[in-house]
Amino acid sequence: KRPREYGIRFGVLPTGSLNAITDVPGVRVGQITLKQGQNIRTGVTAILPHEKNQFQQKSLAAIYIGNGFGKLAGYSQVEELGTLETPIVLTNTLSVPTAADALIDYTLTQPGNEQVRSVNSVVGETNDGFLNDIRGRHVTKQHVLDALRQAKTGPVEEGNVGAGTGTVCFGFKGGIGTSSRKLPASLNGYTVGVLVQTNFGGTLQITGVPVGVALGKYSFKENLDGSCMMVVLTDAPLDARNLKRLAKRAFMGLARTGGIASNGSGDYVIAVSTAYQIPHETNSAFDEVKLLRNDNVSALFMAAIEATEEAIVNSLFAAQTLTGDQGHKVEQLPVDKVVDLLKKAGQAK
Amino acid sequence: KRPREYGIRFGVLPTGSLNAITDVPGVRVGQITLKQGQNIRTGVTAILPHEKNQFQQKSLAAIYIGNGFGKLAGYSQVEELGTLETPIVLTNTLSVPTAADALIDYTLTQPGNEQVRSVNSVVGETNDGFLNDIRGRHVTKQHVLDALRQAKTGPVEEGNVGAGTGTVCFGFKGGIGTSSRKLPASLNGYTVGVLVQTNFGGTLQITGVPVGVALGKYSFKENLDGSCMMVVLTDAPLDARNLKRLAKRAFMGLARTGGIASNGSGDYVIAVSTAYQIPHETNSAFDEVKLLRNDNVSALFMAAIEATEEAIVNSLFAAQTLTGDQGHKVEQLPVDKVVDLLKKAGQAK
Amino acid sequence: KRPREYGIRFGVLPTGSLNAITDVPGVRVGQITLKQGQNIRTGVTAILPHEKNQFQQKSLAAIYIGNGFGKLAGYSQVEELGTLETPIVLTNTLSVPTAADALIDYTLTQPGNEQVRSVNSVVGETNDGFLNDIRGRHVTKQHVLDALRQAKTGPVEEGNVGAGTGTVCFGFKGGIGTSSRKLPASLNGYTVGVLVQTNFGGTLQITGVPVGVALGKYSFKENLDGSCMMVVLTDAPLDARNLKRLAKRAFMGLARTGGIASNGSGDYVIAVSTAYQIPHETNSAFDEVKLLRNDNVSALFMAAIEATEEAIVNSLFAAQTLTGDQGHKVEQLPVDKVVDLLKKAGQAK
Amino acid sequence: KRPREYGIRFGVLPTGSLNAITDVPGVRVGQITLKQGQNIRTGVTAILPHEKNQFQQKSLAAIYIGNGFGKLAGYSQVEELGTLETPIVLTNTLSVPTAADALIDYTLTQPGNEQVRSVNSVVGETNDGFLNDIRGRHVTKQHVLDALRQAKTGPVEEGNVGAGTGTVCFGFKGGIGTSSRKLPASLNGYTVGVLVQTNFGGTLQITGVPVGVALGKYSFKENLDGSCMMVVLTDAPLDARNLKRLAKRAFMGLARTGGIASNGSGDYVIAVSTAYQIPHETNSAFDEVKLLRNDNVSALFMAAIEATEEAIVNSLFAAQTLTGDQGHKVEQLPVDKVVDLLKKAGQAK
Repeated sequence: KRPREYGIRFGVLPTGSLNAITDVPGVRVGQITLKQGQNIRTGVTAILPHEKNQFQQKSLAAIYIGNGFGKLAGYSQVEELGTLETPIVLTNTLSVPTAADALIDYTLTQPGNEQVRSVNSVVGETNDGFLNDIRGRHVTKQHVLDALRQAKTGPVEEGNVGAGTGTVCFGFKGGIGTSSRKLPASLNGYTVGVLVQTNFGGTLQITGVPVGVALGKYSFKENLDGSCMMVVLTDAPLDARNLKRLAKRAFMGLARTGGIASNGSGDYVIAVSTAYQIPHETNSAFDEVKLLRNDNVSALFMAAIEATEEAIVNSLFAAQTLTGDQGHKVEQLPVDKVVDLLKKAGQAK
Repeated sequence: KRPREYGIRFGVLPTGSLNAITDVPGVRVGQITLKQGQNIRTGVTAILPHEKNQFQQKSLAAIYIGNGFGKLAGYSQVEELGTLETPIVLTNTLSVPTAADALIDYTLTQPGNEQVRSVNSVVGETNDGFLNDIRGRHVTKQHVLDALRQAKTGPVEEGNVGAGTGTVCFGFKGGIGTSSRKLPASLNGYTVGVLVQTNFGGTLQITGVPVGVALGKYSFKENLDGSCMMVVLTDAPLDARNLKRLAKRAFMGLARTGGIASNGSGDYVIAVSTAYQIPHETNSAFDEVKLLRNDNVSALFMAAIEATEEAIVNSLFAAQTLTGDQGHKVEQLPVDKVVDLLKKAGQAK
Repeated sequence: KRPREYGIRFGVLPTGSLNAITDVPGVRVGQITLKQGQNIRTGVTAILPHEKNQFQQKSLAAIYIGNGFGKLAGYSQVEELGTLETPIVLTNTLSVPTAADALIDYTLTQPGNEQVRSVNSVVGETNDGFLNDIRGRHVTKQHVLDALRQAKTGPVEEGNVGAGTGTVCFGFKGGIGTSSRKLPASLNGYTVGVLVQTNFGGTLQITGVPVGVALGKYSFKENLDGSCMMVVLTDAPLDARNLKRLAKRAFMGLARTGGIASNGSGDYVIAVSTAYQIPHETNSAFDEVKLLRNDNVSALFMAAIEATEEAIVNSLFAAQTLTGDQGHKVEQLPVDKVVDLLKKAGQAK
Repeated sequence: KRPREYGIRFGVLPTGSLNAITDVPGVRVGQITLKQGQNIRTGVTAILPHEKNQFQQKSLAAIYIGNGFGKLAGYSQVEELGTLETPIVLTNTLSVPTAADALIDYTLTQPGNEQVRSVNSVVGETNDGFLNDIRGRHVTKQHVLDALRQAKTGPVEEGNVGAGTGTVCFGFKGGIGTSSRKLPASLNGYTVGVLVQTNFGGTLQITGVPVGVALGKYSFKENLDGSCMMVVLTDAPLDARNLKRLAKRAFMGLARTGGIASNGSGDYVIAVSTAYQIPHETNSAFDEVKLLRNDNVSALFMAAIEATEEAIVNSLFAAQTLTGDQGHKVEQLPVDKVVDLLKKAGQAK
């Protein structure tokens, strides 16, 4: 059960119908989970902004770096040009090159891309090396291509799945989580969807309730560390500048869960708008865009904060106890106890 | 009474003895409050890292911009050189030039600075134009010089004082707040002190308890907006790079109170280390420094987050209902109700 | 005579008709020169992108920081919002607060701005403290307002004028310089205009000819240092992201003159597009813009490089020997010798 | 013959004894050239700052992005932590993932790295897709490992070699170039070495002489575009902040050759100091460093500018006419004509 089913509410804005990144029309997610033998606990999660050829029809995009101890591929070109030309792939730290290479394969072989000689693969990662034999680099290009091919709209699986298969969050089993917000018409009606790969530390609080302290699990009591990848999609017409501002708010959502972005954390947010597709080639010298004005973006900011907070907690509720490499075992969040704590605080029913 | 006196606890790290920015040895704060007639509700808050000539003995420093809709003076030189060469002054938006000019006066007239021809004044601000006749620009250079002169160690006044005299936070009266954390010896024993000028919006939560919603006051229900200036001092030996990372964590502390860094918000953090004084001139070609390693900064990060969260709430507990320009009135936080809400949630005694 | 009149050519693109920043339609420049007594050698240069109320009709803008040892006011808001809401004022280092305050006066008192409570003054500077009694801060708010009021289209005075009255460049008298490029219709026909306040060091080369070495005047032979303010205007429809890229190319133009952006240099570029005026308030939630595509900006980049190189050299050709504070004297560039050197190198006629 | 052998002088500072990046003590370069059949024209260039285990003994480092249309791997972690933990590898655009993966192999298999689970590979690239069948991705991990293994001190091969095998610069055959500057003792005596992979456009000027125009080859006359990777090594004790400033000056050196950093250009500078080795693990909580003061870095800045300008021209003098993929042919710089032009301008003997 997801937190909302326990009556837990994050913030004040309404969710989309699936409470998932796929509430943004056209967005698809594909996941490959690698759980093999005693020591392989990893995977791939792919997010596709639209159904067309992403290289030929680029999306407006930005990347915000919360804490840059990470290996994300593709930052500088997105920053310079303000566009995304591949799907987004998440995986483990040491498989970033494999995934980036797979995105090149994917792009070069798509119909219409026969002349393409330059591809800016965007790949995020966190380090699942506690539960997963990360040094073995078990993710293959085929796994990545499979994740891309299987991507679909609709509900998104959460927890020990895809790139979240082997991750650890606040000392509990982490994983993939997702959430969304749908603004009311008075605030322009746009949707903000978030997907996270949770693998970080701090002092867990759920809707502010200090769960981490209550359960005796928090940074500097235990050695908690790690990273969080956040992907934000929206149908609001924002350019790269405002998408970067939106991305930064996802990082604020992470802060609301008690994350501290420790030295060793790779906290990145990739934000993409589906409002426009910028053609790779065109006869026009211009891009014509109708962009939301600066003074209309604040509600989207709040949406990104709330959806990120909820997506992180969703990942914890969905994840299950897992044993992996070297016999390491990570317990899942004790949901019943947590719900009790939240009930006492008036935050669950 | 400050929140701690109601048994409210922010995070897990211990405070310094004053629970104030002045817990960092040598740090002084001076404040001038302008409350005159019907419409003047503003002031000046000055923070001095050490007792020597700040221009001749520069401090390692960094500025992090959470949301740049603001007029802070002095950013680029701090960013380029990694040092602070004037005290920090906070005031209202339209008085930044006056304060910057006063810092030039202050610097040029100090003994030893007779040949100085370049001064990088660092001035932060928020907009108190709802309660204060900000267009009147009632702050004078003398007010700023007075704040600098009166600066002292020891307890720091909070609430409607200094640069916080006329500010509004989460729809309630805001102001100046301060807090600190003293790390245990096992985490190297350093102190992190924070002072904030609170003037922003969002959905107020206090130790996670959704106070704003409970009281019916939050962004997009009402029109809440605005800015937050945060100043972080520490005796930990950090260079500009790690001070900027530390500054960013203060912004995460703001997020924990429910702040959303709306479009119109000017959210800036100035972080300064008192560990070294970098001479303006010296015979040596080198600066010799012993800096905390990257992998030892995370506890400081957590300290900055917690102290910022607490400083913001401290400002709300201390601020008092105020009427000002055009008869505008802003109510103080209903502390009794709030404490009741926190008690119910198990967060106050 | 300007360099072009000696047959000197900078780059390959054609200039606008005035070879000045005012070739960009609607752009006006106003300058106040303060040359009084033995020691006052300073002034003000104002650049206005258009004739309307700049606060109500903001311009798309960006600021690039080449080397941030400087006191430019207004950076962070331009960076965050991508717009300019005051004219640009240049003056000396210690008069930035005065100029910023004057821009607030200017803005608050303009018809239509009666409710304005927040103004992001943009003021650039270089340090004329060798020839000018900079510590005396002789620039007044009235001087700034006068420069704004006198601003006009048409030719722009160069050399010892306005904010360039007391500056020094490559060891010779520097000052204000300007130049422009008008792209051919095949490259979309836009104009790029540049105005510089030259006050920096390095090894002067003019169209590549190593004039500084030939004349025995260059950094580390003599103690040359200092800053350069560059303002780039264009009618090309670029948003803040591409304006920042354009601004960076002006810095490349500085490099072509032999500038080295020494530690003490404050090298800033303010780039503004006149293509759109973004209303401060409007009923629409959107800004509709037709922007030049990324793959069409390179010719503008080259234009900015060439025009900046030429504007810097123009400032040197126009500036005249000046004696000032403490009897300091700075010789003008020996134009005849320089032209001879360029003739020998085949770069002048 | 290198340009210096024709009496051509770039700037005013003396070179190191090899006039190569390897003048910085301990720095090694390894190159693998792939010239096979009709269409494979690519390769690998590796730069190793020191002889020890780079992961265990990290180097202070920074990356400056001149224009970010590129796929460089490793940016964000270097930016966040200020250190380099792998050698630097340069190759072609679509082989970045292969090279990044090879650096992981290299690191994981080094003695002492048995527990390493996170590696920040730093890989730069330019696009050799005109002469090379880049879509074929002919660089293998073994090629990269071979380049690393063969790395040595001493002279560095220039021209059509390593990662410069298939590149094109200013419309002529580009490639690898290198140069250095050795500061006199009065300026602290440090060495700055630069290595470039040249593949970009603009209007070529050599020591300022407008060679590109004279030869009728320049941007917008022809379609010239592309990128430049620059690597700067120094034994000066600079931290990441000052290394980033140093890196920016290499970009100014590129500007001096007539480069324009066009939209499609990926212009990156990786700067590394060999002065300190920061241990991956240590018992101390501190790094003790003696860093060159800000006011002593300007001569290093000038050194980086001059050495980069010279390294780029060196690459052009060394490169030879090459035919490659699809029968594309790129002529080498007509050195005799160029030297004649420089002689006439008084810039060669």
